[in-house]
Amino acid sequence: MKICELADHYNEEITVCGFVDSVRNLQWVQFIVLRDETGKVQITIEKSEEKNKELVSIVDELSVESTLKVTGVIMEAPKVKMGGKEIIPSNIEVTSKNTGELPFNYKDISTVNLDTRLDYRYIDLRSEKNLLMFQIQSEMVRHMRDYLYNHGFMEIHTPKLIGAASESGSEVFEVKYFDRKAYLAQSPQFYKQMALASGFGKVFEVAPCFRAENSNTSRHATEFTSFDVEFAYIDSFQDVMDLEAEMLTYTFEKLNEKYGEKVKEVFEQEIVVPKGKFPQMRLADIYKELEERYNYKVDDDEKNDLTTEAERLCYKLAQDKFDSEFLFVIDFPAEKRAFYHMRDENGILQGYDLIWRGVEITTGAEREHRYEEIVKNAKEKGLGEDVSFYLDFFKHGCPPHGGFAIGIDRLTMLLLGIPSVKETQFLFRGPTRLQP
Amino acid sequence: MKICELADHYNEEITVCGFVDSVRNLQWVQFIVLRDETGKVQITIEKSEEKNKELVSIVDELSVESTLKVTGVIMEAPKVKMGGKEIIPSNIEVTSKNTGELPFNYKDISTVNLDTRLDYRYIDLRSEKNLLMFQIQSEMVRHMRDYLYNHGFMEIHTPKLIGAASESGSEVFEVKYFDRKAYLAQSPQFYKQMALASGFGKVFEVAPCFRAENSNTSRHATEFTSFDVEFAYIDSFQDVMDLEAEMLTYTFEKLNEKYGEKVKEVFEQEIVVPKGKFPQMRLADIYKELEERYNYKVDDDEKNDLTTEAERLCYKLAQDKFDSEFLFVIDFPAEKRAFYHMRDENGILQGYDLIWRGVEITTGAEREHRYEEIVKNAKEKGLGEDVSFYLDFFKHGCPPHGGFAIGIDRLTMLLLGIPSVKETQFLFRGPTRLQP
Repeated sequence: MKICELADHYNEEITVCGFVDSVRNLQWVQFIVLRDETGKVQITIEKSEEKNKELVSIVDELSVESTLKVTGVIMEAPKVKMGGKEIIPSNIEVTSKNTGELPFNYKDISTVNLDTRLDYRYIDLRSEKNLLMFQIQSEMVRHMRDYLYNHGFMEIHTPKLIGAASESGSEVFEVKYFDRKAYLAQSPQFYKQMALASGFGKVFEVAPCFRAENSNTSRHATEFTSFDVEFAYIDSFQDVMDLEAEMLTYTFEKLNEKYGEKVKEVFEQEIVVPKGKFPQMRLADIYKELEERYNYKVDDDEKNDLTTEAERLCYKLAQDKFDSEFLFVIDFPAEKRAFYHMRDENGILQGYDLIWRGVEITTGAEREHRYEEIVKNAKEKGLGEDVSFYLDFFKHGCPPHGGFAIGIDRLTMLLLGIPSVKETQFLFRGPTRLQP
Repeated sequence: MKICELADHYNEEITVCGFVDSVRNLQWVQFIVLRDETGKVQITIEKSEEKNKELVSIVDELSVESTLKVTGVIMEAPKVKMGGKEIIPSNIEVTSKNTGELPFNYKDISTVNLDTRLDYRYIDLRSEKNLLMFQIQSEMVRHMRDYLYNHGFMEIHTPKLIGAASESGSEVFEVKYFDRKAYLAQSPQFYKQMALASGFGKVFEVAPCFRAENSNTSRHATEFTSFDVEFAYIDSFQDVMDLEAEMLTYTFEKLNEKYGEKVKEVFEQEIVVPKGKFPQMRLADIYKELEERYNYKVDDDEKNDLTTEAERLCYKLAQDKFDSEFLFVIDFPAEKRAFYHMRDENGILQGYDLIWRGVEITTGAEREHRYEEIVKNAKEKGLGEDVSFYLDFFKHGCPPHGGFAIGIDRLTMLLLGIPSVKETQFLFRGPTRLQP
């Protein structure tokens, strides 16, 4: 039985398992706090009772962080702070032993540096905060998927080993592949588009992406989990923005229902469920308003993309102007973006960035689906042989389509107010970190 | 609107999009069959009607496999073979053009060799069979996940870039990682166990695994999607078998409801929903019965594992003896298995293989969770430094646990009676195949 279920079984004999969260060995009584992934419960052993003799000697030897299997009766006990209940045990089995002192106290990490925490991640993850974070991340991805299933999407699994280094400017990892070289996919972009050229209609994928970038920021990793969406028969990139906004709203609603209170308590963050459509602004208008409202000025040659500071200020702007945490930024110039993004006749990108809480969480767009145009765009960017396999996808009919990607580590970071993706990845991977 | 929804909208104006499946241009009338991921519908254009002049000239130029956006009225038309309905169009927009002859006719692949089909996978996937196969695969994984969510599991995302070549005997791919080497994970085994050492309780992951094996069979690939499950507080590996059997039964029930008829029609296969517990047999007893029943004999020194032929015969045995498609094989000798599998005091592995339709689809086990024992087992197998980070996970308490993994490509292959995983992977990866 899980600890969260105990309250439904007062006065019954139950068995629970978990880690020893703490032990207090007093003169007349012993208390164990037992912890599983659903909560904590107190176990109380009266030393004076003859039948407890064996239990007492087990607890005498017990070290915190060992694991137990405990059988006993669950009693209502209003005085007990931990949920007003306690277990009176008849049997305690030590199922594994903590063999020594922990490398650090995960319950108080205020003096522990992040690298030490990541070195001993299997200890670090034992904290209430980390467990809750990953439970929420799991639930978040679940609801994002459910939204898509409910709208006719199917999940695909595209290869991460690819034959040619391709697509974006960022560096790719090289793999020794028998007697030749392979590369690790930076994104499933080409392949999710292939699915649409194959008539799959609406697809998504949740999978690792690899970026050989030797950078060290709070938002980047050499490997991260990307939630990728692509769908056909759109009228414009506005359809893509609508879908993403609806998916996120659905997800936040569900998360807020289940975890809203807990997130306030543990992370001091509010899950703000978006109201209605997300606002959108043209890039040029944003720079104009940032200057007018907050006196933020940049040189003209920086205005063809959002600076990090402009991203940050977009949070304020979205709140002040639209009472929204989200802001779609549109009308980027095409020369800053990948060749496969659709442009209009003026070279304006038919795509967007989505800024949430001051950070870009998505780039989305309508894609160029017309064979002659995509070939021309690839040539303009100086891309040759390496993308020819991709250009072939458009030769024999490919419907208009678009899509977007969200890094789930980054989304988790912003949702819970965590400083860095180093903490929201199960095991962070960076230029100098491959362990554990 | 999707084509499958049209029947609810007779006599209304609707818009549908899709690929041109066929065009017939007759003397008095033109027929287009339009196809999306949900079905097909006929579009009928009377040439004699003055208002159709423009439409007629569009269809005159139309090549199959181009994509259209069609607006018109959907009419009940009992004589039309394709679902008893037709669209009388008022507008047809060609949204992309097929620019030339297809590399092969995907509707009749009887004379096309598999390598050609894989070279032009974006065409090959347009067949009804392939689309349906991947729709079912998506649905299958969805239900497997749902079963686990409903039983308190959470999803994790473990790194595929790892610092040390480790774990199993099969070869690992080496990655150039800045100024050092990294490797691609062969499985998330160590990390899903780490999650349990961290107190996560019940976890699963659906992610790529990489195997640098230069083999070419119908069941192997250098990259495949693995559905990995691991959970704590088990009493024995019987709990693991029970969970897997229940998960598969739940999934097959759901799949049979939605796709049972379609699978019979398109793949000539039956989705057999298991009844009750899956049978289990000891390895030694299987060899005894295979000899008695089918006169299958092997040398004693082969009897410490299942031969491929024995696997195949287990299908017959499971059906004849238990009226089951599934058979759990237990009591393998420990020396044939990984060091992290739990053994009893006689060296008998506390794990199993699951055989379905004559193929092994899973290896599952209780894991060794006791620090002293796992260190001893690793030493016995001659594993040193490379797994020391893993051994650390067990130092500070780790609950009893177990788990299993299923390759979803292989599961799809067996479910639908497809000859090879080369066809059930979205894009197959093998020693000589990295494209497209």
